[in-house]
Amino acid sequence: MPEKVHQAIRWSMFAGGKRFRPALLIATGEAFGAPIHTLIKTACAFEMIHTYSLIHDDLPSMDDDDLRRGRPTCHIRFGEATAILAGDALQTLAFRTIAEDEQLDVATRIALISELARAAGTPEGMVAGQGLDMEAEARQVNARQLEEIHRHKTGALIVAATRCGAIIGQATEAELIAVTGYGSQLGLLFQITDDLLDVTASVEDLGKTPGKDAASRKATYPALYGIQETREAAAKAHRNACQALEQIDRPTNALRDITDFILNRSG
Amino acid sequence: MPEKVHQAIRWSMFAGGKRFRPALLIATGEAFGAPIHTLIKTACAFEMIHTYSLIHDDLPSMDDDDLRRGRPTCHIRFGEATAILAGDALQTLAFRTIAEDEQLDVATRIALISELARAAGTPEGMVAGQGLDMEAEARQVNARQLEEIHRHKTGALIVAATRCGAIIGQATEAELIAVTGYGSQLGLLFQITDDLLDVTASVEDLGKTPGKDAASRKATYPALYGIQETREAAAKAHRNACQALEQIDRPTNALRDITDFILNRSG
Repeated sequence: MPEKVHQAIRWSMFAGGKRFRPALLIATGEAFGAPIHTLIKTACAFEMIHTYSLIHDDLPSMDDDDLRRGRPTCHIRFGEATAILAGDALQTLAFRTIAEDEQLDVATRIALISELARAAGTPEGMVAGQGLDMEAEARQVNARQLEEIHRHKTGALIVAATRCGAIIGQATEAELIAVTGYGSQLGLLFQITDDLLDVTASVEDLGKTPGKDAASRKATYPALYGIQETREAAAKAHRNACQALEQIDRPTNALRDITDFILNRSG
Repeated sequence: MPEKVHQAIRWSMFAGGKRFRPALLIATGEAFGAPIHTLIKTACAFEMIHTYSLIHDDLPSMDDDDLRRGRPTCHIRFGEATAILAGDALQTLAFRTIAEDEQLDVATRIALISELARAAGTPEGMVAGQGLDMEAEARQVNARQLEEIHRHKTGALIVAATRCGAIIGQATEAELIAVTGYGSQLGLLFQITDDLLDVTASVEDLGKTPGKDAASRKATYPALYGIQETREAAAKAHRNACQALEQIDRPTNALRDITDFILNRSG
């Protein structure tokens, strides 16, 4: 109880999806030697924050999407009010999950909550990016503004996933800086390929309606640079991410695989 | 930046209001000897959670309210999308504010975040109460169900405000139990008088539209018991709260004043 809100939470959390952010957090943590049982709850918290943002983003007054991860969006299935509450509850649960993770000492939990809150909120994080994105809609944005929007909207949470993995793995300050450099490039690569897929992918591959960015005149890389130049920008972000990885003197094979996967993804 | 989201946050946070939850937290903390600088940030976090819940509650798909704290609701003033983001951002900021409060040791911060998350989320807290309330709309509820809804929807956060004040004041486990008893009775009193005001108060006193509960066929005390019996229930909850206060061997005058204020409030 309340049944409907909990059904809506499960509907959106267990709809599949790539689990990109938790996978990234775990791969980074394992590169730094952290055992999986110290990473799993924080990884889940990141997926909760991401899922809450999708539920609220899809609402009629926001992006008004009917399809997500190959099925009806939360508000289509359960109604708007329940979808709003399900998103709200998932955000709360994310912070609670880290706060109550007894595998981590309290100082680490506090560091993780601070990282996640900064990356999810405003002015540094995801909600700020959504605000900037809304303000930019149907307005001409330049390259710097586009980069600013994406760095907040998707970049911050991706960077935070790598940093939180490294924090749990007790990375040094210098290592954290290197990880942040990698995360930034990966976040950029993720957003460029996301924009490309909106133009090039089918609804089956994407699990959501393609062409929405263009229809709502969103600021995107293909809109600003064209498809060919956007593909080159993706290849460049991939190279930069791989170079950043080489600055980390740890076994980063899994992170390299994730980086390749994001370059070549079809959904 | 983003300007509009931040304006919306300020609009709702600085609209006045009773500041009941932060006042309660501070009064409880001071009863236990905690200095104000150790209480103020957690008190603000409670007001942020409360304000986020009001913003989302007022949305068209939820209670659809145009007036709050004597002025247009957030979505009327800034649009639905911005209101959703402002609420989301306030929730994030609440947890961040506690996580980064350097006046408190990390173990205390973790305890507070856990308390606040349980009280704000589901299944124990506020979002659960809103879910239960929605599921009960236009359905006959009995006394037990009404109490269950209110205990989650408003009671949990009020109890948590008293508990968090006491935690910062390093209350013993026995004292925390006594505080919880007081908070529960005060929460009940608050909700009974809230329901009464919706029937009896003017729009000027209330700062929001009265009569909404009856119009939406919400489960309320007056609907279930009538006004006279509801007034008696308020007097009884007040007596019980005062008796619970007497179990706390600390200077609780300020808490007594708050309890009287809630019984006699006109808005």
